[in-house]
Amino acid sequence: MTAQSVNLFSAEQPLVLASGEKLGPIQVAFETYGTLSPEKDNAIFICHALTGDAHAAGKYSLEDVKAGWWDAFIGPGRGLDTEKYFVICANVLGGCTGTTGPTSISPLTGKRYGLNFPFITIEDMVRVHRALVAHLGIEKLAAVIGGSLGGMQVLEWVAQAPEALQNAIVLASAAQLSAQGIAFNTVGRRAIYADPNFKNGEYYHDGEVPRYGLALARMIAHITYLSESSIEMKFGRKLQDDSDQFAFELQQETEFQIESYLHYQGKRFVERFDANSYLYLTRAMDYFDLAARYGGLETALKETTARFLIASYTTDWLFTSAQSRELVSTLISNGKHVSFCELESPFGHDAFLLEIDQLTQLVRAFLQVDEL
Amino acid sequence: MTAQSVNLFSAEQPLVLASGEKLGPIQVAFETYGTLSPEKDNAIFICHALTGDAHAAGKYSLEDVKAGWWDAFIGPGRGLDTEKYFVICANVLGGCTGTTGPTSISPLTGKRYGLNFPFITIEDMVRVHRALVAHLGIEKLAAVIGGSLGGMQVLEWVAQAPEALQNAIVLASAAQLSAQGIAFNTVGRRAIYADPNFKNGEYYHDGEVPRYGLALARMIAHITYLSESSIEMKFGRKLQDDSDQFAFELQQETEFQIESYLHYQGKRFVERFDANSYLYLTRAMDYFDLAARYGGLETALKETTARFLIASYTTDWLFTSAQSRELVSTLISNGKHVSFCELESPFGHDAFLLEIDQLTQLVRAFLQVDEL
Repeated sequence: MTAQSVNLFSAEQPLVLASGEKLGPIQVAFETYGTLSPEKDNAIFICHALTGDAHAAGKYSLEDVKAGWWDAFIGPGRGLDTEKYFVICANVLGGCTGTTGPTSISPLTGKRYGLNFPFITIEDMVRVHRALVAHLGIEKLAAVIGGSLGGMQVLEWVAQAPEALQNAIVLASAAQLSAQGIAFNTVGRRAIYADPNFKNGEYYHDGEVPRYGLALARMIAHITYLSESSIEMKFGRKLQDDSDQFAFELQQETEFQIESYLHYQGKRFVERFDANSYLYLTRAMDYFDLAARYGGLETALKETTARFLIASYTTDWLFTSAQSRELVSTLISNGKHVSFCELESPFGHDAFLLEIDQLTQLVRAFLQVDEL
Repeated sequence: MTAQSVNLFSAEQPLVLASGEKLGPIQVAFETYGTLSPEKDNAIFICHALTGDAHAAGKYSLEDVKAGWWDAFIGPGRGLDTEKYFVICANVLGGCTGTTGPTSISPLTGKRYGLNFPFITIEDMVRVHRALVAHLGIEKLAAVIGGSLGGMQVLEWVAQAPEALQNAIVLASAAQLSAQGIAFNTVGRRAIYADPNFKNGEYYHDGEVPRYGLALARMIAHITYLSESSIEMKFGRKLQDDSDQFAFELQQETEFQIESYLHYQGKRFVERFDANSYLYLTRAMDYFDLAARYGGLETALKETTARFLIASYTTDWLFTSAQSRELVSTLISNGKHVSFCELESPFGHDAFLLEIDQLTQLVRAFLQVDEL
């Protein structure tokens, strides 16, 4: 694993964002796994999801408790086999783990951007990813893969640069977020705005960040990542061991295990994520609409030469199988090569991060066709 | 329509709550529609849902814009026909529209209870309802009907007083809330706690109530009341007419119609509901578990002589048809008379409030059996 950072674009040659605003230079944090072939034809780009980062696999040191977020899927002999492929993962534009975003210092003011960071879209994220790929000297990617917000980036990539990738792998995703998904993002953002420490995004210099609001936003989102069956399976209605009956969460430790789990997830999240980044990235997700952007889904996908693997999960209610099927039928009617699989899993939307054996089999089989 | 209020229980003869605490006197706000027969055998009791109240039908004055919350279902020739039945609806214990709850003045301190109000359960709510029915001189109800939290009260009523009702009508409800439901209630409550105006429930004397937190809780809950299809149908991803592209909700009017709708719902809600009441009632909902309370669902339902009508809605994901079916199969294996209907509706959990024609047909047919 190599963790790196590079400056792309510049003040003189900025990235022109979808909004019309200009941004440059843009720092991009990325990691690579495996070795780029002399022909530079074995690169796979991973697009991470909403709260992911460039650290997809491996550990920085032996003391690290946790490996990268998709570690079981990346490595020698794994789903993305680093003995064959050169795997790249970069933090998205607007993120908070090394790539330019609202936590970065604005060259104009010398202070952190906060909400003065320009509005970004998934289109912009992909432009930055593509600039990184060009910087690495790679003309055509063997594959681009991503789940959820990552899958949206894969679809945008196909529309933006139809011949720049050989394979497109879209997991638990869609060409647009559902109205329900927008609704959950909305209340999450409102929880952040409502935190008195939010201060319109100007919280970097006071030591106090909007922890409570961000944790709440994460808790809301987390429910949508779990299926009803996984939540029942994992927690049922079990009471916490040491609890008295009849209490509010305020007065003592929370009572139902699901409450304490959500609270734990929320608390852990605020240690590693920035509230402003959360606002920018969820908003980009809301606005993503491949069909509207390119004048129809057919048009968006018409030019590409990529082969597609689309996978959905039976209990995912945030990005449903119906949404994947819509995508698949457009691809088929466009005469594209597309494999579709609705994977059986009880884990809801989170399944693409958890069901690694299943995913490994599927992706290896799909990519193997190239070797035949 | 007659809107009334009565004091039940007393300091000397208090209600002993499920928690062991004592409460009395308890004021109960209720309304009645139609006329009680001389035999007092034509009374139907309506149990309202989480944020409902005693004002189920009619208008207080001609100037009233809105009628009671179930107006289209109650009246001469309607689903609950007031030419036949004497219909009663009472605000629940812990509510904020006339029945004793956290907004009431504590006789001990002379101040509003706030979070010093004792912890209440659905069992307690039903004890108060039953005391009201006894106060009205009614020994046996022709029916008890309710949706959602109201349906839980109907089930509790059956378990608590198996021979006190002839018919039990349970709509979009269950013998316990799902873990997912608990999760959504949890984040809603946390939104209230996080509001700086909440002040641990002591906000009554400062003029400033936790509006933002309560509105947010309502927005979260509201999403769970809508189905994905109703939300798509109603709002799709339409942008608000006058909006610019690319914005946060903070900076201007919200952009997607669903956001503005949720925001409107949240704002309207805080004008009519109390945050502490919301905490108490959602918590009662979380704790409700008929099987656990009575040593099994079979045991809870064993003694009753009531006929059951259970109805669920195809797109309700908060109280699913599967939960209703579980209830139905227990009733059947107990040899009870039970009618079950899964109603086709695109409106999700809210359907029991919206699909009045359907409900009218169903309930009239069910109740007519008594007349044969």
